[in-house]
Amino acid sequence: MSVSDVEGGAAPRPADSPRDISDQKKDGAQKERLYLFDTTLRDGQQTQGVDFSTAEKCRIAAMLDGLGIDYIEGGWPGANPTDSEFFDAPPATRAVLTAFGMTKRTGRSAENDDVLAAVLNAGTPSVCLVGKTHDFHVETALGITLEENLDNIRASFAHVKGTGREAHFDAEHFFDGFKSNRGYALAAVHAALEAGADWIVLCDTNGGTLPSEIGRIVGEVIASGVPGERLGIHCHNDTETAVAGTLAAVEAGARQIQGTLNGLGERCGNANLTSLIPTLMLKEPYASRFETGVTVEALEGLRKVSRTLDDILNRVPMKQAAYVGASAFAHKAGLHASAILKDPTTYEHILPGSVGNERVVPMSNQAGQSNLRRRLAEAGLEVERTDPALPGLLETVKRRETQGYAYDSAQASFELIAREELGQMPHFFDVERYRVISERRRNAQGNLVIVSEAVVTVTLPGGEQTTSFYQNENPTEQSDAGPVNALSVALSKDLGPYQSYIADWKLVDFKVRITNGGTEAVTRVIIDHQDGQGRRWSTVGVSANIVDASFDALVDAIRWKLLRDGAPV
Amino acid sequence: MSVSDVEGGAAPRPADSPRDISDQKKDGAQKERLYLFDTTLRDGQQTQGVDFSTAEKCRIAAMLDGLGIDYIEGGWPGANPTDSEFFDAPPATRAVLTAFGMTKRTGRSAENDDVLAAVLNAGTPSVCLVGKTHDFHVETALGITLEENLDNIRASFAHVKGTGREAHFDAEHFFDGFKSNRGYALAAVHAALEAGADWIVLCDTNGGTLPSEIGRIVGEVIASGVPGERLGIHCHNDTETAVAGTLAAVEAGARQIQGTLNGLGERCGNANLTSLIPTLMLKEPYASRFETGVTVEALEGLRKVSRTLDDILNRVPMKQAAYVGASAFAHKAGLHASAILKDPTTYEHILPGSVGNERVVPMSNQAGQSNLRRRLAEAGLEVERTDPALPGLLETVKRRETQGYAYDSAQASFELIAREELGQMPHFFDVERYRVISERRRNAQGNLVIVSEAVVTVTLPGGEQTTSFYQNENPTEQSDAGPVNALSVALSKDLGPYQSYIADWKLVDFKVRITNGGTEAVTRVIIDHQDGQGRRWSTVGVSANIVDASFDALVDAIRWKLLRDGAPV
Repeated sequence: MSVSDVEGGAAPRPADSPRDISDQKKDGAQKERLYLFDTTLRDGQQTQGVDFSTAEKCRIAAMLDGLGIDYIEGGWPGANPTDSEFFDAPPATRAVLTAFGMTKRTGRSAENDDVLAAVLNAGTPSVCLVGKTHDFHVETALGITLEENLDNIRASFAHVKGTGREAHFDAEHFFDGFKSNRGYALAAVHAALEAGADWIVLCDTNGGTLPSEIGRIVGEVIASGVPGERLGIHCHNDTETAVAGTLAAVEAGARQIQGTLNGLGERCGNANLTSLIPTLMLKEPYASRFETGVTVEALEGLRKVSRTLDDILNRVPMKQAAYVGASAFAHKAGLHASAILKDPTTYEHILPGSVGNERVVPMSNQAGQSNLRRRLAEAGLEVERTDPALPGLLETVKRRETQGYAYDSAQASFELIAREELGQMPHFFDVERYRVISERRRNAQGNLVIVSEAVVTVTLPGGEQTTSFYQNENPTEQSDAGPVNALSVALSKDLGPYQSYIADWKLVDFKVRITNGGTEAVTRVIIDHQDGQGRRWSTVGVSANIVDASFDALVDAIRWKLLRDGAPV
Repeated sequence: MSVSDVEGGAAPRPADSPRDISDQKKDGAQKERLYLFDTTLRDGQQTQGVDFSTAEKCRIAAMLDGLGIDYIEGGWPGANPTDSEFFDAPPATRAVLTAFGMTKRTGRSAENDDVLAAVLNAGTPSVCLVGKTHDFHVETALGITLEENLDNIRASFAHVKGTGREAHFDAEHFFDGFKSNRGYALAAVHAALEAGADWIVLCDTNGGTLPSEIGRIVGEVIASGVPGERLGIHCHNDTETAVAGTLAAVEAGARQIQGTLNGLGERCGNANLTSLIPTLMLKEPYASRFETGVTVEALEGLRKVSRTLDDILNRVPMKQAAYVGASAFAHKAGLHASAILKDPTTYEHILPGSVGNERVVPMSNQAGQSNLRRRLAEAGLEVERTDPALPGLLETVKRRETQGYAYDSAQASFELIAREELGQMPHFFDVERYRVISERRRNAQGNLVIVSEAVVTVTLPGGEQTTSFYQNENPTEQSDAGPVNALSVALSKDLGPYQSYIADWKLVDFKVRITNGGTEAVTRVIIDHQDGQGRRWSTVGVSANIVDASFDALVDAIRWKLLRDGAPV
């Protein structure tokens, strides 16, 4: 093994290097530039249960590009059909598209390694190769000598740079390697640097290194001669500190940040760019010192980017997510809610709108009248402190919460009862009756089928009654979506003058829990709907009968939509 | 304002203080003790959508106590009926039960403040009072003078200590306050200290302070004369760094850690004890330096504690959660999985079993089979390692779990499919068909009624068919218990020779969750039954149709009961 190359190696990057991305901001002349490297499409694809299609990869790449990410790692060409297809017809991006691969294997030249060739053949302007820096892994996982591994690193980067690409070295298990054999770990990264790698990315591959140790080791790597402006960090969240580990590396001098949207990634995920980007742009000591390629305007689209990714993956968005979660600016405590009324900065560390998010002051049995007024104001209902309807409304909310309703999770239903108490709720329609059937039987061919059907009768303004039916047309054992779906389809099939208002809505979430309504167990159903304008709203129904609770939540959802869209009465 | 009391105040804690908890460990004589203060039942209750019942609070307190937490903050006596009820009959715990409240208000004495009196009247050995330390909050949110606020702090803690309790001061917005007016923030915490507060807990109330700043400020507070062994830290996760912020405070000298299970809490949640505890116990530089009240054995129950809390809240467990998530030790990348087979330490930073978790290696049946045999043994089925049925059963379980079944929560259903694969399941009866109706309509008197009815046809041994009906005899708007109840009653009305076996059963819990079955959203229903002998068992059903999923779980419940009671075939 050779550690003779540990010093030096800080060759200046050529001026025409593809990483010289034109700045998005004009105001940051004195600021240091941080480079964002997104690996949602590569490491993010290692998330359990995530399996992107090529079309989804293209859509996500476009979204990352719109956000202002510098590097988009698209996958590993040759490793699987989806990744190969993505690189066969890659989307046009301002961001530098990067192909991932690994350093050449022992026993063949870089030019003759077919795995490396597939990566280079993708023709991306930038290539990221992972390689070993931990002596234990070289000898145990690869089964080669330490010197052979250094040769593989050198030869691979010399070859990549020979093709004119920008080159990143993902130094796998670097922190464990550094602690096990400092000299060898440094020799490995310096081998890459001297062979021409533009970026050395220190990877905490198993996620086991804590932030203070990351900061210390990054500092030692820079002291060994790797320039901070060519140094990157790649953290995993196995101790729930990937964001903090990344920040510690930046404070120590690293200037490239690898991470994923929503923290997707192998095991517990990668460092979450959705949290890191606003912290770097809005929070001290970072905001006044650094800049990224993300503009203030793009940052205001962050919540939408996060939700769109969840939509693509059909995942329920994490309410408690930092910055972008639905609860990130939800003030449930009564003390907090009353202070927020006086000045939002009392309990908010940033303005919710700066990341495209919104303040929420949920109703709950802990809240008093100030909370209630705040919540009313958010629903567009300005009510004076002295309004005589206020105590009655508070009473109603509390009574219904005792019955099992949960208005902090169902803001739309809250607005409806508030408007009713205040005499500000239009009367759209009445449900006269409904009837729903679910059945399991054998069909004429002897196959088991499950079939649901529903009928709903509604009285419209002017007294006209409409009756609508739904039936599963082609029942099989799997096809039937159940009684709530049947009622929802029937209810929204013919609402007369209101039909056009609900043409673009869809049910996006459905939650059920058994709770106590007074002394009896009741079912609480919370339903989320979304419309074509991207609005999402939640309604609640409570009954001992799960179908009836669901039906009430469905009716509330329609009434709220009609209210918002100003439907005629 | 007075800052004259900033120095000094490090009076030794009396030897008989309630916080002198007997150590659980004998091996840590030289280690420094960290004290864990759990606020799941107080700050965790501020989570949007969380609303504990008193019984749930008691269950969680018992769980925290079993884990080895030092302080359990149970809520705010007097603030709402649930918290008051909890403290009226608190569970017996080894942990020190703590009541939360706030410092006395201006214009009355501590003795005459009814809010403070309600807190003390709860009679807990320990009390935690939140108070202001940020000048802006004193003047804007409270509207009192800075000196009045210091008086309130002094008088409150003098009063609490006069009643013999252990006293914690939650210094609200401390970090923002320190940055705004260092002298005043320090004056406030020293006022509490000198009035006898045992612990000064620095709260980053709006979650906006980053870890390196937390570490620096904690160091400055200690330098001002607050002893580290009386200093606590309370972080929020608004920048996804609450765990790291807590660790930074511990490194700087703080010795009490406030947090919640699964990171519940206001907005983005509190510091997650489920992540912090294993990091402090298993990871360097903490493990060799510190000890907590949690034993190595209790730590092995950590995943179970986390999942049980999710069950109580009917929340979907976060797969990517550090340490305890289902994906925390899932190795999806091919390179990782093959290295793991050679040596698990290649890609795992701790042993999964140390927190009660398990390795998941897709495509490898090796880990799966030992896990499976353990589950079979739990169901009383001893199966040899070489049993040829084992691979097929593993395949079946994996396929069904992919479809949405959750056998960890439905041991009875697991036993049934295991017995079927192993050829050890008697055939009791077949369901030929069912049909269930739920209806809302007006009755002859014009009153709204809700009514459900069901019919079920079953083939019994020998080929006899029975058909049973159920109808709500006296429908009102409230009386109907819904389609699942209707099916359950009909199904257990006439089961021929099996009728006597299910005479004493009843449905005691019913949980519904939307989950992914392959690529489609499906409904998972878990039903708990109990019989006259006090046996309780759980079964699972999965379908896009909630009624059908429930029906399958009901049928499994009967089959398991017949199996256990040795019913004839």
